[in-house]
Amino acid sequence: METKRLTTPAAEEILGGYFPVLDHGFVSLVDYMGSDESIERAARVSYGAGTRKVSQTRGLIRYLRRHHHTTPSEMVELKFHCAMPMFVARQWIRHRTASVNEYSGRYSLMPLLFYKPAPGNFARQSARNMQGRDADAAPKALYREAVERWERTRASAAGDYSWLVGEDVARELARIDLPLSTYTQWYWKIDLHNLFHFLTLRAAPNAQWEIQEYARVMAGMLKRVAPISYEAWLDYNFCAQPFSRGELEALALLLEPAEDGIRARPGAGVVTKERMKEMGLSPREIDELREKLQPVPAPDLELDLGRMRSAEEVEREMYEAVPSAFE
Amino acid sequence: METKRLTTPAAEEILGGYFPVLDHGFVSLVDYMGSDESIERAARVSYGAGTRKVSQTRGLIRYLRRHHHTTPSEMVELKFHCAMPMFVARQWIRHRTASVNEYSGRYSLMPLLFYKPAPGNFARQSARNMQGRDADAAPKALYREAVERWERTRASAAGDYSWLVGEDVARELARIDLPLSTYTQWYWKIDLHNLFHFLTLRAAPNAQWEIQEYARVMAGMLKRVAPISYEAWLDYNFCAQPFSRGELEALALLLEPAEDGIRARPGAGVVTKERMKEMGLSPREIDELREKLQPVPAPDLELDLGRMRSAEEVEREMYEAVPSAFE
Amino acid sequence: METKRLTTPAAEEILGGYFPVLDHGFVSLVDYMGSDESIERAARVSYGAGTRKVSQTRGLIRYLRRHHHTTPSEMVELKFHCAMPMFVARQWIRHRTASVNEYSGRYSLMPLLFYKPAPGNFARQSARNMQGRDADAAPKALYREAVERWERTRASAAGDYSWLVGEDVARELARIDLPLSTYTQWYWKIDLHNLFHFLTLRAAPNAQWEIQEYARVMAGMLKRVAPISYEAWLDYNFCAQPFSRGELEALALLLEPAEDGIRARPGAGVVTKERMKEMGLSPREIDELREKLQPVPAPDLELDLGRMRSAEEVEREMYEAVPSAFE
Amino acid sequence: METKRLTTPAAEEILGGYFPVLDHGFVSLVDYMGSDESIERAARVSYGAGTRKVSQTRGLIRYLRRHHHTTPSEMVELKFHCAMPMFVARQWIRHRTASVNEYSGRYSLMPLLFYKPAPGNFARQSARNMQGRDADAAPKALYREAVERWERTRASAAGDYSWLVGEDVARELARIDLPLSTYTQWYWKIDLHNLFHFLTLRAAPNAQWEIQEYARVMAGMLKRVAPISYEAWLDYNFCAQPFSRGELEALALLLEPAEDGIRARPGAGVVTKERMKEMGLSPREIDELREKLQPVPAPDLELDLGRMRSAEEVEREMYEAVPSAFE
Repeated sequence: METKRLTTPAAEEILGGYFPVLDHGFVSLVDYMGSDESIERAARVSYGAGTRKVSQTRGLIRYLRRHHHTTPSEMVELKFHCAMPMFVARQWIRHRTASVNEYSGRYSLMPLLFYKPAPGNFARQSARNMQGRDADAAPKALYREAVERWERTRASAAGDYSWLVGEDVARELARIDLPLSTYTQWYWKIDLHNLFHFLTLRAAPNAQWEIQEYARVMAGMLKRVAPISYEAWLDYNFCAQPFSRGELEALALLLEPAEDGIRARPGAGVVTKERMKEMGLSPREIDELREKLQPVPAPDLELDLGRMRSAEEVEREMYEAVPSAFE
Repeated sequence: METKRLTTPAAEEILGGYFPVLDHGFVSLVDYMGSDESIERAARVSYGAGTRKVSQTRGLIRYLRRHHHTTPSEMVELKFHCAMPMFVARQWIRHRTASVNEYSGRYSLMPLLFYKPAPGNFARQSARNMQGRDADAAPKALYREAVERWERTRASAAGDYSWLVGEDVARELARIDLPLSTYTQWYWKIDLHNLFHFLTLRAAPNAQWEIQEYARVMAGMLKRVAPISYEAWLDYNFCAQPFSRGELEALALLLEPAEDGIRARPGAGVVTKERMKEMGLSPREIDELREKLQPVPAPDLELDLGRMRSAEEVEREMYEAVPSAFE
Repeated sequence: METKRLTTPAAEEILGGYFPVLDHGFVSLVDYMGSDESIERAARVSYGAGTRKVSQTRGLIRYLRRHHHTTPSEMVELKFHCAMPMFVARQWIRHRTASVNEYSGRYSLMPLLFYKPAPGNFARQSARNMQGRDADAAPKALYREAVERWERTRASAAGDYSWLVGEDVARELARIDLPLSTYTQWYWKIDLHNLFHFLTLRAAPNAQWEIQEYARVMAGMLKRVAPISYEAWLDYNFCAQPFSRGELEALALLLEPAEDGIRARPGAGVVTKERMKEMGLSPREIDELREKLQPVPAPDLELDLGRMRSAEEVEREMYEAVPSAFE
Repeated sequence: METKRLTTPAAEEILGGYFPVLDHGFVSLVDYMGSDESIERAARVSYGAGTRKVSQTRGLIRYLRRHHHTTPSEMVELKFHCAMPMFVARQWIRHRTASVNEYSGRYSLMPLLFYKPAPGNFARQSARNMQGRDADAAPKALYREAVERWERTRASAAGDYSWLVGEDVARELARIDLPLSTYTQWYWKIDLHNLFHFLTLRAAPNAQWEIQEYARVMAGMLKRVAPISYEAWLDYNFCAQPFSRGELEALALLLEPAEDGIRARPGAGVVTKERMKEMGLSPREIDELREKLQPVPAPDLELDLGRMRSAEEVEREMYEAVPSAFE
């Protein structure tokens, strides 16, 4: 339809298309409001008469993000339709500044779709990250036994559910033994400021791998809605690092501003761990500082348009997974 | 432009048009996301497979509002550009679940526009409403003296401001003696659920009359974005009344359900104030109950399209009010 | 310890005590800030010099609640430690204006405790409430089969979990097949305004019975922190009913204010369903109106102090339910 | 009184004491909930059975803050009573995740107290910071003229206000010409997470100097409620600096991790502005990077207990400033 609202062709191209995530999940951008230009307009209302018009859109947006002037980015909204396993949904919902309408297991019959990790994502407890998994996959045999067990338990839970709703037991009770791997779905609306916060936490390597998969697809979508803001987020948030008071002091022992740039202090040798400990850094902080000196490249979060599916196809798949007695 | 997003012709008709409020203020709907249909879609995600498809859009939206299922209405967003006196802005900003970018008196020169109440709105302290004004205007002579005083004080404040910025005193200091009647402006974005809450409080007769004026125009705008929701809000919120436990007991002494409707209890006479006092109602609650039995008609909040102005015209007016030394 | 803060003996009496809910859950009030008096103080800051000091604490608090002046009640905070099945946690977490720290299945081993509905709470789908259950329990035989099925599926899920963590599979993966009936726990902090909103929705008869059980215990706790506010909430929120514009018009056909109270209009007969339909009420609204004329008594939500348990006892029970290989 | 709640002697010492800010303003800590230990307890609920108990309170709290695990710090609440000029109140209120009850100019008579900047804080527009003032004070003569003007305009505004309320004009209208320098007051309650955010922005050197004064006093108060968290905030937030992707790349040209610490890369010379520009840094970012290499010492925000006043004294001062006709 025809509209006077700000419209972004790259976003229109994917609007209402469904991108698969994990084995049965998806993310679709179903609506959006505003773009980089809306952020600029909102910011410009602060810089009214008598101010120098210094910056162009890109410069202004990057300045705002670098200096934590985040309110203008609240002026852009994105709305997604998503399906994810419930253990992912439970992490996701912790982001409170968003609007949600979730599929209701009290009203409706649940599609019996369960998330089964792929062999490459099935791994042992990480020795390094107390809440994560190893980079390497667990042995094939272990995976095979896990799959057998998952299938047995899920068949049992699905059988119970079908039997209970078949007996017309209240749906709110029938669903209580469905596993956390069961897929649910929701509409989720959020402004750009809060979406960036979500992505910073959930696309990060220490987030659970499964939610990272969602975050990466959503980052690719917002890149189409607000590409300049996306780039600024990569540079100033996602690929940035904070340096603490102690770390700044350690840096200052080695570096100094020079007339024409920055330079190593003449004769600067090593700032030893011992020295940093005396400056108040914990052993763990010292390791973290050493890591920050090895920057990682910016990720490529471009959407693969070849994977886009239609709403109808996805809806049919969900519908067919509802217990058969109730079709 | 062409878009696949939900688009509402009645909203497009006023998009970006400026509606005057008070003597120098305005409200403009500058962007919107969604409509009644988005609320229905979000609600339907809860009512998936296995549920009876009972209701059409209007029935569903009215059901949701009547039963306080408010989350689907968060799926609609409206963005306004508004100018209002600072004492109005200070009431407005108390609504926290919204996004704001305000004109900055630290960066920018303030337009020297002040709100002058019209004679009909200048009134004595209400004897009835401790925070409001009389329904009747104050005497003409009193108004004339007030106007003289306002003009004197504002000329003094405006002169100070112009002199201070002329001397290049920091703007953040120059502005500290501007009166609360000075106009400011902002972009304000809010979802429909929170906008309804704002309108319920701010279009109500006990709100300050000046902010009611803004609320009424905004209600007229949202009526064009989501007309079914607007009507449901009038019926179930704005023109509705809560009855307390004690009031329900008093009603039940006089009324009862009948086979084919509701009826006065046979022989029901008067429930006296004395009786209601015994039931725990305070004298004030008894008065309130008596008032609730005299329903007021729904207001007509239709926009007057003849008053719509262009962005350019309004912007020029603001710009010309900036201290002349700085044009 | 000694404190200058407002302190409420009735709250101190239960502070840190654990009240059982469902078969393995609990609620404990672990901290609180303020009381009825804090609400009064915050409200009085608005009513400064020049105002009549009309009301005592009770009158003021009831006035505030009746007239939706809710901000002073944000000045009171309650903090709870709770354990509940995950399907309850998923409803609870939808209340966004609260602070939460939940037990993490990524870091920690889950206690293998599952909620088993009691026979009296196991019921068929309600014919009346599309999302609820019948008032009457389902047949015993049906319950017995459900219990057998639950036990089989839970044994399977618990066995998988124990095996997976025994093989040192990442905890974030091991837990994905635990059923929604598994207990989790959290610290939950909320202000009184938002707690009232939570209780209004979750202690209501159309909420899932299991979350009602939690809400009722928490209501009993807040009654000890702020008894006047609690009573006002019962009278003006929990046991109150809204009347829509149409319902008010129907009432006005039957009732009118009288000199000394309210009375049935002389000669008022029946307002028929037909008539109400003409006034715009749907069949469902007409039924709802008829129900509102039969007020229900206020519930008794007093805590039973005899059920209070110690933190140590409860903690031991949780700890013992962790897979035994890992004690 | 006696309480089982966590109680902090250093906070009790100042509880209810009033600390002057600016010429007529104040901040008082009137209530608090929790302390460092509550943060630890809330965090520990995540680290249940099967986790290594690695860290002591200080280590844990610093770890949480460094890694942006901010939810446990929401478990602490502080409540303040504050008086500030309205232009300060307008900046303050932009922090939305807080509870506020403000003195109402619609109900109550305003104390006629106005903020007059001291000579040392009266300065010209900064050439460097578009929204701030020069570090150096403006000439004495300029200040003297400003004072004369302020006094004239304020006398005029105060005279109008007294006359209007003397004529019983509605207070909501009488106050519209009070200047932004007029003091207002409020109760303000916020959790520690959001208070840190407030302080990070408002105690920063680019905030308006007047609000910095408030932030500094409040930081001194929270230091008494949660000293370990306060120290972690100084180290990881207030005195920390983010380094963008481009800045990290520039650092990596000069520094590298060494076996026993970090060191300048052998032969590292200068990273020139030209080079940084090629790497995508703007001229402004290059300047910012140079500044980050010169760390500033942590501020001393200790409260001066000698300045503490009683509630009665402060209240009397406010009361006496109300227009005399209405005492």
